[in-house]
Order: sequence, then structure tokens, then C-alpha cells
Amino acid sequence: MFLLEYEEDIIVVDCGVGFPQEDQLGIDLVLPDIGYLKKRQKKIRGIFLTHGHEDHIGAISYHLPDLRAPVFGTRLTLGLVKVKLEESGFLPNADLREFDPDVDAPICAGVFQVEPFRVCHSIPDAVGFGITTPAGLIVHTGDFKLDPTPIDDRPVDFDKLRAFSERGVRLLISDCVHIETPGSTPSERVVGETYDRLFASTDGRIIIATFASLIARIQQIIDTAERYGRRVAALGRSLEKNVQMALDLGYLKDPTNRLVDGREGSFLPDNEIVFIVTGAQGEPMAVLSRIANGDHRDVIVGPGDTVVVSATPIPGNETSVFHIINQLFKAGAEVVYGSRARVHVSGHGSSDELVTMLNAVKPRDVVPFHGEYRHMALYRDLAIEQGYTSEQVHFAENGNVIAITPEAIKVEGKVESGYVYVDGVTVGEVGDVVIRDRRALARDGILMVIVAVDRETGQIVAGPDIATRGFVHAKGASKLLDDTKEYLRSEIGDGAHFATSDWGYLSRQLRDLTANYLHRNTRRRPMILPMVMEV
Amino acid sequence: MFLLEYEEDIIVVDCGVGFPQEDQLGIDLVLPDIGYLKKRQKKIRGIFLTHGHEDHIGAISYHLPDLRAPVFGTRLTLGLVKVKLEESGFLPNADLREFDPDVDAPICAGVFQVEPFRVCHSIPDAVGFGITTPAGLIVHTGDFKLDPTPIDDRPVDFDKLRAFSERGVRLLISDCVHIETPGSTPSERVVGETYDRLFASTDGRIIIATFASLIARIQQIIDTAERYGRRVAALGRSLEKNVQMALDLGYLKDPTNRLVDGREGSFLPDNEIVFIVTGAQGEPMAVLSRIANGDHRDVIVGPGDTVVVSATPIPGNETSVFHIINQLFKAGAEVVYGSRARVHVSGHGSSDELVTMLNAVKPRDVVPFHGEYRHMALYRDLAIEQGYTSEQVHFAENGNVIAITPEAIKVEGKVESGYVYVDGVTVGEVGDVVIRDRRALARDGILMVIVAVDRETGQIVAGPDIATRGFVHAKGASKLLDDTKEYLRSEIGDGAHFATSDWGYLSRQLRDLTANYLHRNTRRRPMILPMVMEV
Repeated sequence: MFLLEYEEDIIVVDCGVGFPQEDQLGIDLVLPDIGYLKKRQKKIRGIFLTHGHEDHIGAISYHLPDLRAPVFGTRLTLGLVKVKLEESGFLPNADLREFDPDVDAPICAGVFQVEPFRVCHSIPDAVGFGITTPAGLIVHTGDFKLDPTPIDDRPVDFDKLRAFSERGVRLLISDCVHIETPGSTPSERVVGETYDRLFASTDGRIIIATFASLIARIQQIIDTAERYGRRVAALGRSLEKNVQMALDLGYLKDPTNRLVDGREGSFLPDNEIVFIVTGAQGEPMAVLSRIANGDHRDVIVGPGDTVVVSATPIPGNETSVFHIINQLFKAGAEVVYGSRARVHVSGHGSSDELVTMLNAVKPRDVVPFHGEYRHMALYRDLAIEQGYTSEQVHFAENGNVIAITPEAIKVEGKVESGYVYVDGVTVGEVGDVVIRDRRALARDGILMVIVAVDRETGQIVAGPDIATRGFVHAKGASKLLDDTKEYLRSEIGDGAHFATSDWGYLSRQLRDLTANYLHRNTRRRPMILPMVMEV
Repeated sequence: MFLLEYEEDIIVVDCGVGFPQEDQLGIDLVLPDIGYLKKRQKKIRGIFLTHGHEDHIGAISYHLPDLRAPVFGTRLTLGLVKVKLEESGFLPNADLREFDPDVDAPICAGVFQVEPFRVCHSIPDAVGFGITTPAGLIVHTGDFKLDPTPIDDRPVDFDKLRAFSERGVRLLISDCVHIETPGSTPSERVVGETYDRLFASTDGRIIIATFASLIARIQQIIDTAERYGRRVAALGRSLEKNVQMALDLGYLKDPTNRLVDGREGSFLPDNEIVFIVTGAQGEPMAVLSRIANGDHRDVIVGPGDTVVVSATPIPGNETSVFHIINQLFKAGAEVVYGSRARVHVSGHGSSDELVTMLNAVKPRDVVPFHGEYRHMALYRDLAIEQGYTSEQVHFAENGNVIAITPEAIKVEGKVESGYVYVDGVTVGEVGDVVIRDRRALARDGILMVIVAVDRETGQIVAGPDIATRGFVHAKGASKLLDDTKEYLRSEIGDGAHFATSDWGYLSRQLRDLTANYLHRNTRRRPMILPMVMEV
């Protein structure tokens, strides 16, 4: 999420979700904290979406009720937004405004004029924005690659970029996440060529796992299936929904009726069916994982079947993806994945493409975005090679304010920002404290120490008792736990010398004594939770 | 760990540690379970080590006291073992027997004769074994690559392999972990060439993070430092120990006294020092991580410094390695890592090298090892391309028994096997139950429900009280917790109807009522730990 503010006007670019890092334990989704925007809700003139990926639209259904602003996007992007808003029940209250970047006039949003321009990405109908502001023209690339042969035949709109450049661009905000790869990212079309070779070489069933949003790839599977006389069945809720939506809006074409439903597909001969399935990132509840576990109703894999994992595992997911690949091999299937054939290409431009964009736009200053710090640092090197100075490249992190004037650009200060965690159905109840506790629990477990004290005399009338989880196996370590209780009893006696009004002190004593005793004896530091119960 | 058993004799090949998977929370090391061997301790004729990496020798200091058998290895391998046994205090009781694979006669170990042969790997002095057994000759490659220009000038001993082949090899046990890479693995020497270019292009300080066991790489750093007039300081306990040991044994050569200690190095001008540091896998307590956090006594990095991360993060470590790289960039350093330059090569042979080994040994049957299932499956394809049938390639997993006779090879049954976890100083106390609890705690946290009951009347005299960690923030969710207590009170009343002799029933009621109430209200399932305290 990126926002532009000038006096009484704000526009927001994208409103996505993050996926939890490994150390954000038990978290399902990470939302942007919109505290800053909520307080300025009246100033928001619009939410402009670059494309329909989760990390750009996924928080809309959570945050739109608070932001209450019109949402602008291309037809496919809004189609995906509608699916979300329908599920959350907010669709009737949403003000969705479709634009066609090739035809429509610039969109006025308060003091800003927004001109969308086509870019290529791993989802069709992706755009960047030229935004005219009082401080000058800002070009935001969105996520992009310069695919010379895109599946939808709509390349990056360099005419508009040139026009921006001629008007003079104050600031380019450029995708930089794929900068570590030299040269250019291959066209999505090379994946189709790999599919063609795979289809030509097998008479068995073919199962292709990919992302539900990769509409272009789904089109290539339908096209290849047509050439080889196979039908196509999509399995997995998000995939089925997206396929239907993309067909309805004309982004997927199935002129010879290749598509069948999963049930029907499962009854076809092996050489007449391709399944497209969700779960290419190893998600445990998705179709691929269930197939690998022998746990899917319609698809059981075995010798003769070919499974294609058309994705690159994102860091943190490798272990589960490779676990699934191992299981599929064990079941006897042939498995084709990134290390063996070109079954996935990135949607982001490599370093040569970033150079091309920079030189086409010729901005006075640049802000690399969508990358980690190392990607921004490499982008600066790349800009310097193109004749920029390091002062013209600005790094902004989440929450940073980029102050833009016609004369100068400065990254200064921070506004209220950060993350809101989604765990189950509750949004925001799980904060950093809870996550920190989960990390501690995961590392060393927990041990509770309970005593009951007489509220009149302050004497300990029962306990200390100990219960533990995730620290030691209580049965195997009963001696350690008995010794700990014994030690506590000898240290605190009958407890009568603890002031009856201050159980906090007794509590802290119990905690510290237990922690020290256990550390001395095991070198470990479980979380200690003391409880004093008044009876 | 691999063992060969024939009637009254057993030999063990390697005795390494595993590193914990992401879901083995809070675990430091994973040891092989040696229950099977312990019961047959009298039969063990020797432990034969292929090379000195942790995953091949790391469990020696834990298990040798139980195995009580002579340990056979090359000089460097035993040097590394000695360091471990010294630390654990078992060295005086250990029977270490050095062999020189180029000179010594076959080693007799019960009914087996063991002939070590040189292989190349990312540590010097690595060997494989030809083992003559009553069922025929077995060749175990150890971890290997066919480096044509190894740093220590000792290539793979193909003369011995040819001799084995002429005698007829019943079974080849072959490394297969790097099979996904086509062609050949580059020589370790290319890393030296990259170092040379880096040293030539900077006058700033150079910091190279690599594995403590990569003696050949340390040699290349010393050699390059010599050419560019720099001194070398090793930082990190394991690295310092290994450097000293390798110098003592003659595996590292420092003819012009490049090596200085860390303190001394920190006072040298920027263009006269290279630091070699531990922590290339992102280990949080190692030197590289401390440097990145600005938390190291002797080395503070900033603009002008070059940090080289000479390693490929193993799956599961990417996030922490990239986090460190981001921090170093933020500190202003230039960071060189795998995506930018060839600063690491694997120690394992790629697919062409596996073919060469297979064709040199010409075994009747093959068992691929050291890989996951997918690597074994790809190895079978590779063997089939070389004219083997799929019946000649056998897959064995941890604990499987490979029954070898001159006529047939079968993988059949399982023996007692598995893993023992090391957490802190305790070995084995943390088992699968504890790990499972940690996983549950990490996902949803824990909630304790405590009541005090009168031991005579069975009436609840205090509580239910609730304490929670890692579930909700207790302050923010006080209403939820109060409501839960209220609900419990209304459901269990004064508790008098619970049999006084069976607190287990009350306990289970508390647990189930709480779990259901919370799931209804939050859709989440924290671990519930009920406690009934008698007063």
C-alpha cells in the first residue's frame, strides 16, 4: 500500500496482504495498519489498483468498510475484487469504477490526475500509473516485466511512458524485486513451450499445479490441451472461481469447450485429461498437498501420471514444496519442477528490464519499491551505472514519508504504520506481544507453578503444583519436576512471610526461583507462568 | 549413519548429526537413534568415517560412550573428531585409528575388509570405502564430487575404483543429493578466482563468511590475501579451532604468516585485512549475524567494506540469511552473495559426475543415498539411461534393511531407528510429544484454567481463574476471558456434583467447555490446560 497526500486529498495505490513470515507463528494473514488513513478518511479520493494479485488487493475486503472510497481498477482486477467483496458481504456498499487504460481519459481524484498505462505481469490487465501532482509527475510502475510476447498480446505501453518522459517525470517508483537476476525474464510463452513438450511425451494423466491468479498460464494449458485432445479440469476453490470469472469477463477463452468439472475429468481416460490444481506453494490444505497425501476424492496419482509444479517456492516454503514432491515421486508419479524444466517464469522484470524502464521514463529521482533492502541497494548501483547519482535514489521503508517538492525529495520521518495480524476470524487481536510469546513457547515450552494461599493468613494451603507443555515430557521428567517442587517448598516455606496484600511478590518469587532452578539443571529457559490462588 | 551387519560382525559408516527442520521447534541438534546398535554393542568392529563434516561425525561425541568401538578416519577427519571428544571429555577413552588411503593395506574389521579411497568434497581428506563382504564387494562413495583441480591436488582415486570394478562390485552406494543440477559441479578453484577479482577491486575491508569446515576455501583466502598484501583473521570459535587444528596437521599452509588474531586484525588499515567469519547460514549467535546487528566487539561494518557470503542458504535458512544481507546493505557495506557472483560451489557431484562414478564402478546394483526421495527417483532415471533396469536400483530410507546376497538385493523391513533430539544440554528428554506440543503452542498459544476445590466437600472454593500466553493479549481481550470464566461458572456451578474422588472428570469438563466456548467465539483452538487444586 502506497499513498499520496497533498493538503486535503489522498489517493491510495494498492491495498494488499502480506503472508506471514516463519517467525509470525500461527498467523494466517498480515494486513497493513491503516490507522493513519482512518483518521483522514474524508480526504481519500480513491483507491487505485495496479493488478489483481493478493499482495495488491487482498486487504480490500478487510479495509474498505473503513476507507469508504471509490476503488479504481481494470476489468479483471475489479472482477477479482468483486469475488472477495461478495464473500465478505460488502459488495453492495462498494463503489467500484472500472477503467480501460487504452481508451479512458485521465481520472481526476482531488488534486491528482491519474493515467493508467499497461504493463506486463504474471496476471493480465496489469497497469502502472502516471500521477500528476502539484509537485510534478510521478510514475508508479506497479509490478512489471517487459514480456515481448505476452499471452494476451498486450505489451507494456511505451508510447505513454515516452509521453510521460517528454512531459518530465519528477519521480519514478519502480519495481525492483527481481534485480538479482541478470538479463531479461523469459516470456510467459516459454512455459507454454515446456507444456507442449510434456504433453507430447506422455499418454498418462497430467496434473499441473500453479497459482489461481495465473490466468495466462491457465490459457496456455487450455490451448495445449486442445492440440493434444485433452480436456481440462480446474480443482481448488480459488482456481475454480477465478476460471469462471475470467471466462465471464473474456480473459480466458475456451472456444472448443476443453473445460470440464473435476468429477467429470476423473472419469476420462488418462490421455484425455489435464488437471489444474492449487497448492503449488505447498499450502497444506490445497489440492496438490491432498493429492500427494493420497487424500483427494477425485485424483489419486500413481505410475504413469505426470505432475508439474509450475511455481518457484518462495523462501520459507521450500521444505513443504519439496516434501510434496517427494511424496509424489513415492507414489510413482513423474514429477516435473523448476530444477528439471522451465515450468515457471517470474512476473517481475530482471535487471536489463529495470534499466529499460528507467531509461524510457527518465525521471529526475527514483524510489525502488517491492523489494527488500538488498534489492533497493542493488537498484541504486544500477541507477548509478545509468548516470544517476546516489542522491537521486531514495530508499523508503514501510511507514516512511517521502516529501516531494519540485525542488527536492527527502525521506523523512514515519507515520503510524505497521501490520495487523489475522488469526482465524479475528483481526488485530493477535499483536506483537502474542507473537513474541508464541515464539518463546515454540522454543522452550511453558511451565506453570500454582499455589493456593489462605486469604486471611497468607499461608500456602496447597501446592506448589506444576504443569508443563512443550518443555519436557512430564512422565519422563517426573523427577525433575518433583525436585523443582521440593526446591520451591524449601525456599518459600509456608509462605506466611509474604505480605497477604501482595501476591505479586510471591508470584515473582515463584517465577524467578523456578526459572533459575531449571536453568541450572537443564540450561533451558521455558516460559514460567506463576499463579497464586486465594482461597 | 549406515551400518553393515553379517552374523557376529557390524561396521558403522559415519555417525553424524542432522539439523532440525523448521517444525522441530526449539531443537538444537538431531541425533540418530542408536537403540539397535546399543543392543549389539559387542558386535561392532569399527566406526569408519568418510570425512569431517558435522552430518558425518557430529554425533560421535554423544554416541561413542555407548558404541565403544574403534574409530577409523583420515588424519584431518580424526583431527576434527578429537576437537569434539576433547570438549566432551571422552578423548582419553576413545580408540582413534588413523589411516592413509594412498598407502595403507585394507583394514580388517571382523568378517569385513575395508579399503578407503580418496574422493573430492568440500573438505580435504575425504574418502569412500570399498568393503569386501561375504555377499560381495560393496562400494560406498561417501559425499563426493569429481573436482578436476582440487585445492589439495588430490583428485578422486579412479585407479582404485577401476580395480574394484575389475573385481566385480555387488553394490554401489552413491551420493545423489546434487542430481538436480545438470553437467558437472565447478571446481572449488573458481571460488578462488572470484575472490581474486573481489580483492583486486577494493581497498576497503573484506569480510568473508563461510563454513568452519571448508578448509580448502580458507586456504584460498590465505593465498589471495598473500597476493594482495592483506592479513587474515578468523573469527568464531569453531573456525578458530579448525584453523589451528588444520595448521597443526598440515592441511592449511601459511608460509608468509598471513594469519593474525581478531583483535590484531581490527587495528590494521582497511586494505590490509580480511576477516573470515562464521555464520554464513544465518545462525543467530554466529559472528556474521552479530556483525550485521552492529553487535560485534572487533568488527563494525560500514561504507567501503565488502562482505562476502560464501555459502548457499540451505532450505529453511533463506529468510535469516537474507535478513542479514539486508542489514549489511543498510549499514552501507557492499554485499556479495550467491545471486551476484560465484562465491560458493557445492561439494557434491552433479548429474554427469554421478554417471561417471556409476560407469567407473559398474556395480550390479545401486543404492542412491544422502538425498531425499526425489533425488533417489531421479537417480533411478539416470541409472536407467545408463542401461540399468529399475529393479537394479534400490531405495532405502532411514531404518530400512537392505538384505544383500550374492544373488539378490531386497529392501525389507525396518529396524529400530529414528531420531533423538538435543535441546540445550539434555539429550533425548525432548521427544516427539514435546515437539508436537511446541507446534500447537506456536500456532495458537495456551490457556490455563484453574479451580481450587475443597477436598472434603468437592465444592469449588476459588476460580475458575484463567491465565493465557500466545493466544490473545490478556489486557486487550479481558472481556473474552471474563466471559469465558462466567460461562464456566454457569456450567459447572459450585462443582459439588463432581465426584470428589475423580478430579480427572472435572478437569476434562473444564477443558472441553473452555475449548468449545473459545472455538465458538474466536474460531481458534489454543491448547487448554485445566488444573484442579485440592485445598
